[in-house]
Amino acid sequence: MKKVVFFLSVLFLSFGCEKAPISKAIKVANANELSESIANAQPGDEIVLANGVWRDVEIKFSAKGTEDWPIVLKAETEGGVFIEGVSSLELSGEYLEVEGLFFRNGHSPKSNVIAFRTSEKEVANHCSVSNCVILDFNNLNRDDDNLWVQFYGKNNTLSHCYLAGKTNGGPTVRVDLKGNQSIRNYHQIINNHFGPRPRKGGARGETIQLGSSFTSMSPSNTTIANNLFEACNGEVEIISSKTNFNIIKNNVFYKSEGSVVTRHGNYCLIDGNYFIGDGENENFGGIRIVNTGHWITNNLFYNLKGKNFRSPLAIMNGIPKSPLNRYNQVTDVVVAYNTYVNSNAPWQFGVGTNIDQADVLPKSEIRSARPLRTEVVNNVIYNEVGDPNPIIEHDKADGVTFASNIIDNNDVLFAKRDGLDSKTLSLTSIGEDLSVPLLGFEDVEIYSGFDFETITKDILGNPRSKSNQIGAFLNSETIDLDLLDKTKYGANWYSNVVEVKEPTTHSVTNEAELVSKLKAAENNDIIELKDGVFAVSESLIISKPIVIQSKGKTEIVYNGPANTPAFALHPYGKLKLKNIKLKGTNTQFAFASLKENMFNHFGLEVSDSEISHFNYALKVYKQSFAEEITFTNTSISNCENGLELSEETNDRGDYNTEYLTVNNCSFNAVKSNVIDYYRGGYDESTIGGNLLVLNSIFTNCGANEKGRMLLNHRGIVNVTISNNTFKDNNVDFVAILWGAKNNNASENSITNSGQIKTEQNLKLKLMY
Amino acid sequence: MKKVVFFLSVLFLSFGCEKAPISKAIKVANANELSESIANAQPGDEIVLANGVWRDVEIKFSAKGTEDWPIVLKAETEGGVFIEGVSSLELSGEYLEVEGLFFRNGHSPKSNVIAFRTSEKEVANHCSVSNCVILDFNNLNRDDDNLWVQFYGKNNTLSHCYLAGKTNGGPTVRVDLKGNQSIRNYHQIINNHFGPRPRKGGARGETIQLGSSFTSMSPSNTTIANNLFEACNGEVEIISSKTNFNIIKNNVFYKSEGSVVTRHGNYCLIDGNYFIGDGENENFGGIRIVNTGHWITNNLFYNLKGKNFRSPLAIMNGIPKSPLNRYNQVTDVVVAYNTYVNSNAPWQFGVGTNIDQADVLPKSEIRSARPLRTEVVNNVIYNEVGDPNPIIEHDKADGVTFASNIIDNNDVLFAKRDGLDSKTLSLTSIGEDLSVPLLGFEDVEIYSGFDFETITKDILGNPRSKSNQIGAFLNSETIDLDLLDKTKYGANWYSNVVEVKEPTTHSVTNEAELVSKLKAAENNDIIELKDGVFAVSESLIISKPIVIQSKGKTEIVYNGPANTPAFALHPYGKLKLKNIKLKGTNTQFAFASLKENMFNHFGLEVSDSEISHFNYALKVYKQSFAEEITFTNTSISNCENGLELSEETNDRGDYNTEYLTVNNCSFNAVKSNVIDYYRGGYDESTIGGNLLVLNSIFTNCGANEKGRMLLNHRGIVNVTISNNTFKDNNVDFVAILWGAKNNNASENSITNSGQIKTEQNLKLKLMY
Repeated sequence: MKKVVFFLSVLFLSFGCEKAPISKAIKVANANELSESIANAQPGDEIVLANGVWRDVEIKFSAKGTEDWPIVLKAETEGGVFIEGVSSLELSGEYLEVEGLFFRNGHSPKSNVIAFRTSEKEVANHCSVSNCVILDFNNLNRDDDNLWVQFYGKNNTLSHCYLAGKTNGGPTVRVDLKGNQSIRNYHQIINNHFGPRPRKGGARGETIQLGSSFTSMSPSNTTIANNLFEACNGEVEIISSKTNFNIIKNNVFYKSEGSVVTRHGNYCLIDGNYFIGDGENENFGGIRIVNTGHWITNNLFYNLKGKNFRSPLAIMNGIPKSPLNRYNQVTDVVVAYNTYVNSNAPWQFGVGTNIDQADVLPKSEIRSARPLRTEVVNNVIYNEVGDPNPIIEHDKADGVTFASNIIDNNDVLFAKRDGLDSKTLSLTSIGEDLSVPLLGFEDVEIYSGFDFETITKDILGNPRSKSNQIGAFLNSETIDLDLLDKTKYGANWYSNVVEVKEPTTHSVTNEAELVSKLKAAENNDIIELKDGVFAVSESLIISKPIVIQSKGKTEIVYNGPANTPAFALHPYGKLKLKNIKLKGTNTQFAFASLKENMFNHFGLEVSDSEISHFNYALKVYKQSFAEEITFTNTSISNCENGLELSEETNDRGDYNTEYLTVNNCSFNAVKSNVIDYYRGGYDESTIGGNLLVLNSIFTNCGANEKGRMLLNHRGIVNVTISNNTFKDNNVDFVAILWGAKNNNASENSITNSGQIKTEQNLKLKLMY
Repeated sequence: MKKVVFFLSVLFLSFGCEKAPISKAIKVANANELSESIANAQPGDEIVLANGVWRDVEIKFSAKGTEDWPIVLKAETEGGVFIEGVSSLELSGEYLEVEGLFFRNGHSPKSNVIAFRTSEKEVANHCSVSNCVILDFNNLNRDDDNLWVQFYGKNNTLSHCYLAGKTNGGPTVRVDLKGNQSIRNYHQIINNHFGPRPRKGGARGETIQLGSSFTSMSPSNTTIANNLFEACNGEVEIISSKTNFNIIKNNVFYKSEGSVVTRHGNYCLIDGNYFIGDGENENFGGIRIVNTGHWITNNLFYNLKGKNFRSPLAIMNGIPKSPLNRYNQVTDVVVAYNTYVNSNAPWQFGVGTNIDQADVLPKSEIRSARPLRTEVVNNVIYNEVGDPNPIIEHDKADGVTFASNIIDNNDVLFAKRDGLDSKTLSLTSIGEDLSVPLLGFEDVEIYSGFDFETITKDILGNPRSKSNQIGAFLNSETIDLDLLDKTKYGANWYSNVVEVKEPTTHSVTNEAELVSKLKAAENNDIIELKDGVFAVSESLIISKPIVIQSKGKTEIVYNGPANTPAFALHPYGKLKLKNIKLKGTNTQFAFASLKENMFNHFGLEVSDSEISHFNYALKVYKQSFAEEITFTNTSISNCENGLELSEETNDRGDYNTEYLTVNNCSFNAVKSNVIDYYRGGYDESTIGGNLLVLNSIFTNCGANEKGRMLLNHRGIVNVTISNNTFKDNNVDFVAILWGAKNNNASENSITNSGQIKTEQNLKLKLMY
C-alpha cells in the first residue's frame, strides 16, 4: 500500500528558477513499492522508506531531480530504517538525496555498499548521501575486498555520515576517476565521523582513497573537510590521495594509526587539520608526501610520536623516472604555517631511501631522488621535552629551503640549521587537552614564497591579512575548541559512545551451565568456573568479548571430535582465559578461528593457564584476524603443534594478527610449528606484523619440525625475541631474523637448539 | 646622449585604475644607456632603442610596470634594430613589453636567446615579446644545445614574431615549469610565424616544447594559437606537449615534417587546427597521442601521407605502469568533429607497439597497453582515391568507441567497422587549394559523449548550438580562407618570401679567377670553368649555394696541404659540382666540412664527375650536417677513403646527413670507409638517416678496411642497397642490415665481396 501525500511546493525556495513542480511525498514499505516510486519520481518528490528492517534490498535510485527540486529518498524516521542482509544502494542521475538510512547486520552483494552509479556510464551527478550510518557491514571473508562508498560522476556529496568497523579488504570510501564522466568531480566528503576501523593486518585498509595510480594524472578536485577520523587504524594510510588538486581541510585525525599520504597525484592542499596523538603510540602518524606541488599549511600536529613513514611530516625520496605505480620525486612542495607540539622529530626527509640496497635491488626500485624546490617555512615547534633532532635526514635535505621557523626546545641542544631558530615560548590552552604556542614569535619575519598570498587564513579561519604571524594559529583573545565533540560529526541520530557497563560475573558449576551462560552473557561479562574438572565435548562458541576464569586453576578437558577446537573463536569473539588448565585428547585444537566467514575480528588473551595434549594449541585459519593474541604465564606442552598463524599465503602483505605476544610462557614437547606466523609480499610501506617472544622457555620442542626452525616468522616486520631460554630443541634454527626490517633477538640462552640467524634481504613476491 | 621626451599619459586608457604616472619615452643608443634607463624605468615608460646594429649586447630587462602602464622596450623603427654578435635578452618583473627587435648574425652567450627570467627566482609575469624576428641565430656548434625563447614565470606572451633557421640542438621555444613560479602559467604563443626549421639530423629539434617529462605532472595551461608553422622539419615532433591542460588551437601546420605530439602530460586540447601536406611527402604528420584525457576536435587533415608515428591520428600503445619518461597508456581521449581529406589511413592505433619484441627487450620497454575509454566519433573522411584501410590497428583498438563517423571512399572497399559508415559526399572549395566536404551528412545522428557540450564551435568558430553536424566544418554559405597569407602571422615588418633571381653564370679561366669569382658570386650563381686543367693549391671556400661546372669535364688538380679539402664546405655552403674531373695527390680530401663552427648546414651534389687520388673523397666532421649529399654518375677511385660521415658518436641519435644518395656511380680501389655513415642511440621515435645506394659498381675496394665491411651504415634507420654490382672487394660483408628497421637490399650482384647480412636487433645505447 502506498500513501501519497500531495503538498504545496515551498515557493520561496525556488525564486528565480523554473516553475515549481507538483511535489509528492511517497511512503513505501517494500522493495517493489520503492522501485516503482523511483521509476515514477519527479523533481521535488520525496520517497519515504517506512521504518523497520529492510532485508536483502538492492536499491537502484536512478532519477533526475533539479538543483532546486531534488528527489529525496529518506527514512521515515532518521535512523529508523535498517538496511540489513545482502543489501546495497546505487544512485545515478542528477540531484538525488539519500538521508537517514542505517546499514548494519549484513553486507553488500556488489563491490560496494553505496555506489554513485548504476552502470559504467550511468553515473550520479549532484547527488548526496547524508545522515546515514554504515556499521560493520562487512563481507563474510576479509579477502573479499570491497568499498563501502564508491564515488563516480561529479559533484556528489557524502556528509554527516558515520562509518565504522570495516574489517575486509578495500578502502572504506573511494573516489573513482576512470572516464571523463568522473574527472574534475568536486565531490565533497564533509562533516562525517569515520569511527574506528580496526587494524586490517596488511594493505588495502585505507579509510579514504582518492583514485588510483592508474588515474593519478587526472584532476579530481575532491574535498575532504570537517570530518572526524577516530581510531582509523586500518593501515598506514588513513587518506591516500592518488589524484590531483584534492583538498583535505579542517579535519581532526584523532588517535588514528596512519597518515594522510599524497601517494600519487599532485597539488594536494592539506590545510587546517588537527593530528592528535597520545604522546606514546608510535603508529599515530601525520602527513607523508610523495610527488609534486602539495601545500601543507596551517596544520596542528599534537603529541605525535610516529617515526619515519609515520612521522608528523615525512617527505619521501622518489625513484628517478619512477614507474607510474611507484614513487615520484617530491618537488615544489610547500610546508608553511604549521604548529608542532610535543611531536618528535617532526620533519623527516628522504623517508624511504634505500640507496644502501642499490646492489641488491633493481635500479627501478631505488628511492634515491631527494626532494627538490621544497620550502619548509613559517612553522612553529614546541617541545616540552626537548628533541635533539627535530630534523631527521634519512637522505640529504639539500633541495629544501628552511626559513622563518621557530623552535622552543626547552633548552635541549639540537642540530642547528639555518632557518630554524630557538625561542622561548609558552603554551596557551585552546580547548580541552589542547595547548599550543600562540605568542612570542610576532617579531619573526615571515617568509613569502611564490603564491604565498593564497594562504589567506589560519587554522581557525582567521584572516592573515593583518597582523600575520608564523605557525598555524594567529594570536587571538580566547580560543575554546571542542574538536572531539562528536555531535559535530556524522549522523545526528547516532552516537558511537558506549556506556561502560560493570561486567556481570556468572558462576558456573557444570558443562551445560557453561554453555548456556556463555550464550546468555553480555559483552565483557565474566564466566567464573567452580573448582574441579569440566568435561566438554562440543566446542565452546566465543562470539563476543568474554572472560572465562577460575580461582583454583579449574581443569577443562575437551574430548570433542578431532580437529575441532575447545574454544571456537567466532567473529567478534574476544576471549580472555585466565587460570585454567585446558587439556585435550591429542587430536583437537585448544583454540581456533572459523574456517571461513570470519567477517569480524576475534581476540585471544590467555594467562596463568596450562594447555596440553592438543593437535594445535592455536589454529588461525586464512582470512581470520585478531588485533592481539597474547599468552602470558602459560605453559603449552605435549602438543603436536603450537601457535599456527601461517595461512595468509596470498603474498599480498596480509597476516593473521597484528600482535602475537608470548611472555613468561613455557613450551615443552610441542613437536611442530611451535610458533608459525607468516606474512608474505614485498611492499616497503606495510609496517605490520608484530611478534614478541619474551622471558619464555622452550624445551624439547620441534621434534617433527620439517622446516627445522622453532620460531618461524617469515615476512613479519617487527620481531623481538628476548630473554628466552631454548634448550634441547631438535632444530637447526631457533629463528631466522629479517635483517632489513625491525627484527631483533637479544639476551637469549640457547642450548642444543640450533642458532638464531639473520638474513638481510628476504626474497618476497612484489605486491605492486 | 639620452633624449628624454615627456608626454602626457593617455588618460582614457586607465580609467578605473591607479592615477596615471608621468610616462617618458627614453631613447637609448648603447648598452650603458639602456641598462641605466631600465634601472630607472617607471610604469608607462617607453625605452626606445636607436636604429642600427647592437652588437654583443646582453639585455637584462628587469622592471615593474603595471597592467595599465606597462614598461615598453622597443625599436626606434620596427625591424630597424639589429641584435647581432654574442647577444641575448632576459626579462623579469611585471608588465614589460618588448617590440620590434631583429636577432640575426650571431648567437646567444646563454642557454637561451630570449628568457623570461633573469635568475632562477626572478621571473617575468605578464610580459610580452612581440613583432620581433630571430633568424639563424645559431650557436656555433650544433651539439651546443640551447633555446631561442624560454618561458618562465606566468602569463607571458610571444606574439607576432618570426623565428626560423635553428640548426643547433634544442627546441626553438620551450616553456619551463620547474618551480611554483612557473606553473599554471597561461602563457600565450600566438600569431607567430614559425618559418623553416631545417632537419636537425636526430632528436632535440622540436619547434615548441611545453615542459619536460620531469614536470609532466604540472598544470601548464599554455596556449599555442593562430600560428603558422611552415616547413618546421627539425624532427618528428613539431610541438611536444609534455605538461597538462595545454591548448593548441587554430594553428596552420603547413608542409612541416613532424607531428603535434602529446608526449607527456595530459588533458591537452587540440582544436581547430589545419594540417596541410602535399599528398606525397610521408614525413608530414598530424597528431600523435600518448597519455590521458586529450581532446582532438575540429581539426582538418589535408593531403597527408604520413604513416605510423606520422599518421594523421596516431594513438600510441603505452607501457604498463610506465616510467615517468616513457609512454603512459592512452585513456579517456576524445577525437571528435574532425575532417580528413585525402589523408591515408588517418586513424592508426597501437602505434609503437613492440609486443613482438617481448623476448629481447626488458618488460619496462614493452608498449603493450592499448588505448582505453577512447572515443573516435563525429568525424568525416573523404578520399578522392579510395583507401582500403582507413583504420590501421598495429594493436587492437578494442578500447576505442567508434560512432557517427562517415567516409566517402569513392567506391573503394574498406575494412568495415561499426561506427564508420559510407556516404557519397562532394567537396566544396573553401579557399585556394582547399576543398572539403561540408554537405551530405546532415542526417547523421551526432554522438554525444561526456562533456561534449563543451565543444561549442566548429573549426571556423561558428556555434554548434544550432544545426550542428559531424566533421570540422559546419555548412555555411561561402567560406574563403586564406590560411597561407603570411602577412597574418609573424612580425609585420618582415617577410620570408624570397624573390627568385635568375642565376648569373660566371666564366672562369684560371685558378685566381675561380677564387675571386667564387667569392663574389651571389647565391645560386653558376661558375663555369673553361676546358683544361685548373691547378688549385688552396681550399676553395663554399659558403653559399653555388654551382661549379664545366662543359668538357675540366680537370681540377688539388695540390694543397695534406688533409685539407679541395672544396671546403662552410656553413650555408651548398655545392653542386657538375662534369668535373677532380684529382688530388693522394693526401688531401676532395670535399670536407669545417672541423668546427658549422653553425649552419651545408649541402653537396656531385654529378657526372670523376674523383680520384684523395685521402678522403668526402670527410664530414662531427657537428656538421647536410640535409642532402648526392653523388650521381660519378666515379670515385684510387682513394684511401671514400665517403666518411661517422663522427656523430655521442649516441644521442645524431647523424651527419638526412639523405646520402649514391646513384649510378662507380667506386674503384677505395681502400677503406667506402661508405661510412653512422647514427647511434636507441630511441623508437627517431626516424632518420637515409642511405640510398643504387645502380652502382664497387670493385677492388676495402683492401685496408679493418671492419671488413664495405658499406657501413650502423644505426641508420632507412637503407636501400639496390641494383648494384660488388666485385672483388676484399671484405667479409658488403653491408649488415638492421632488420628491425627499414633496411633493404635487393637485386645486387655480389662476386668475391663477402655477403649482405641482416642483424635483427642492434645493441644501442638508450637515449632516454
